[in-house]
Amino acid sequence: MKAAYYTGNQQFELKEATPETLHPGMVRLKVAYCGVCGTDVHIYHGKMDQRVRMPQVIGHEVSGEIAEIGEGVTGWKVGDRVAVRPLQPGAEDPSDNGQQHIGKNLKFIGIDTSGGMQTYWNVPAYTLHRLPENMPLELGALTEPLAVACHDVRLSRLQPGEHAVVIGGGPIGVLIALVARHKGASVLISEPNQTRLALCQTLDLPAVNPMATDLVNEVEAFTNGAMADVVFEVSGVAAGVQAMTQLARARGRIVMVAIHSEPKPVDLFRFFWRELQLIGTRVYEPEDFDEAIRLAASGKLPLDQLITQISPLEDIQAVFETIDNNPAGMKYLLQCTT
Amino acid sequence: MKAAYYTGNQQFELKEATPETLHPGMVRLKVAYCGVCGTDVHIYHGKMDQRVRMPQVIGHEVSGEIAEIGEGVTGWKVGDRVAVRPLQPGAEDPSDNGQQHIGKNLKFIGIDTSGGMQTYWNVPAYTLHRLPENMPLELGALTEPLAVACHDVRLSRLQPGEHAVVIGGGPIGVLIALVARHKGASVLISEPNQTRLALCQTLDLPAVNPMATDLVNEVEAFTNGAMADVVFEVSGVAAGVQAMTQLARARGRIVMVAIHSEPKPVDLFRFFWRELQLIGTRVYEPEDFDEAIRLAASGKLPLDQLITQISPLEDIQAVFETIDNNPAGMKYLLQCTT
Repeated sequence: MKAAYYTGNQQFELKEATPETLHPGMVRLKVAYCGVCGTDVHIYHGKMDQRVRMPQVIGHEVSGEIAEIGEGVTGWKVGDRVAVRPLQPGAEDPSDNGQQHIGKNLKFIGIDTSGGMQTYWNVPAYTLHRLPENMPLELGALTEPLAVACHDVRLSRLQPGEHAVVIGGGPIGVLIALVARHKGASVLISEPNQTRLALCQTLDLPAVNPMATDLVNEVEAFTNGAMADVVFEVSGVAAGVQAMTQLARARGRIVMVAIHSEPKPVDLFRFFWRELQLIGTRVYEPEDFDEAIRLAASGKLPLDQLITQISPLEDIQAVFETIDNNPAGMKYLLQCTT
Repeated sequence: MKAAYYTGNQQFELKEATPETLHPGMVRLKVAYCGVCGTDVHIYHGKMDQRVRMPQVIGHEVSGEIAEIGEGVTGWKVGDRVAVRPLQPGAEDPSDNGQQHIGKNLKFIGIDTSGGMQTYWNVPAYTLHRLPENMPLELGALTEPLAVACHDVRLSRLQPGEHAVVIGGGPIGVLIALVARHKGASVLISEPNQTRLALCQTLDLPAVNPMATDLVNEVEAFTNGAMADVVFEVSGVAAGVQAMTQLARARGRIVMVAIHSEPKPVDLFRFFWRELQLIGTRVYEPEDFDEAIRLAASGKLPLDQLITQISPLEDIQAVFETIDNNPAGMKYLLQCTT
């Protein structure tokens, strides 16, 4: 089998490897596709060298087929088509408040442990979600990011007929917009990149460039003065944080999807004055995976249009370099077996 | 009648005045007591000279008796004892989202219009809440700040048995702590002032000095490692904003009570990582006034211990100077009629 190891210094090494021992409770997947997440690019940039253990196989947006069943695993058989929910809960901490998916001792599979950018990958059976027979495995690899979007929209308490603004039109932002629109909301995206704006147009998603126009005025016009019921901050930049409080109506909900590694100035007065709410959201719960698979299988979301490129695992180094040079790209998939 | 006019430059002028014309829909109150709010001190400091129209009578924490009934007012009679909910809704803006109490065109009575620091005060009949016969009018003047606390606790969705931390032990912070405790929560106050800490002790409210101890450790010990379900940020200082995200458990709710006039750095990563929520709260709705009056009338809150001093209206200048020199004081009341 082949495995792509991140070795630090923006390098991957593709090696022949031996499948790991299959422990009880685990299944061995034959990985079909593994998507490249922003976090993988972050790892590639060396920003998480403290956390990964080089050389390490990374990747967590996986679709595949079960190749072997570990001891004690029931309910699955060889050949089953699955997506992986890459969360491995640890010992419960009292401060976890029962929220296993964001527990203090949670391990993120593919970051804290070996990931999916290899031919065979062992994962706990409890991480598996069944993919319908008719779903192409390429789409199956979008389950994980789509589950993020489903989680974000669910926690936003979005109602049909509401207005939502998504700040940041990358893969997660566009997925959120698609899920929110599917739930019956009117959605406007704010995104400065022209290629991404063009993609939004293709997807029939209203989008504006906040560098070229006044975003507050745009949202005012889009909502007939009502402003946004829900704002998703997905940009991760200070300008997004500054905008988010200006775009929400009274009691509007602002969903913090982006990872802001440093504290940023927030207009707390506005939270007080208009009784705004900020809702932090991270990863997903099992029901979000179920919902993501249902949505993808329904064919009602134009998910295939989000796949920028599919490349063989052998090309991993070139793929990461391409992503680096093309910030307008959306989803890059690595084909791990043929 | 007497009226105390704020004339700018930290000065009040007490004058003989003529009661204003009583317009339809209004009632004339004989003001019993008017509490001094932090906002009044802010006005005194000249920080709101753009908003008040000098010379202006200020004050909005009022109890009194109805002295005269305006045309078209029903349901009230002369002699009725009342508290005033000092909100005058303006034309509804689409961005108000139906939240009249924080509407864009809301006027705050006693700031944007004439206030209660005078013998007779005309207010719209819809602002009145009836005080029970057995409630001393001194306590009636605490209805408004107590309604703020009831609103804050209600919007926090606090449940019996939960742990709450209140950052800032001034009048509003202590009222929030009392209401939260009454709702069945375990409450810890963080307050640096020794006099206020001593008052907390008198009220049997656990309190710690964040300058003298590690607040995170204190909350950890107080909650047996569970950390706070709800954090009320009432301090208005950067250290409070920095602490609030550290004290909340996963999915904890942080209530933004304080007025932060400038944007402050917020640990947005923590909101993401632990799925925290921030809930902005401002003033009150009618049900919060009803609840405040019920609570005060029940005698279950030691409200009288929060009254630092009662002074005749004639002493208004000295009272504001005292407040300025004694930041440890709690509630100062002006007695407007005898």
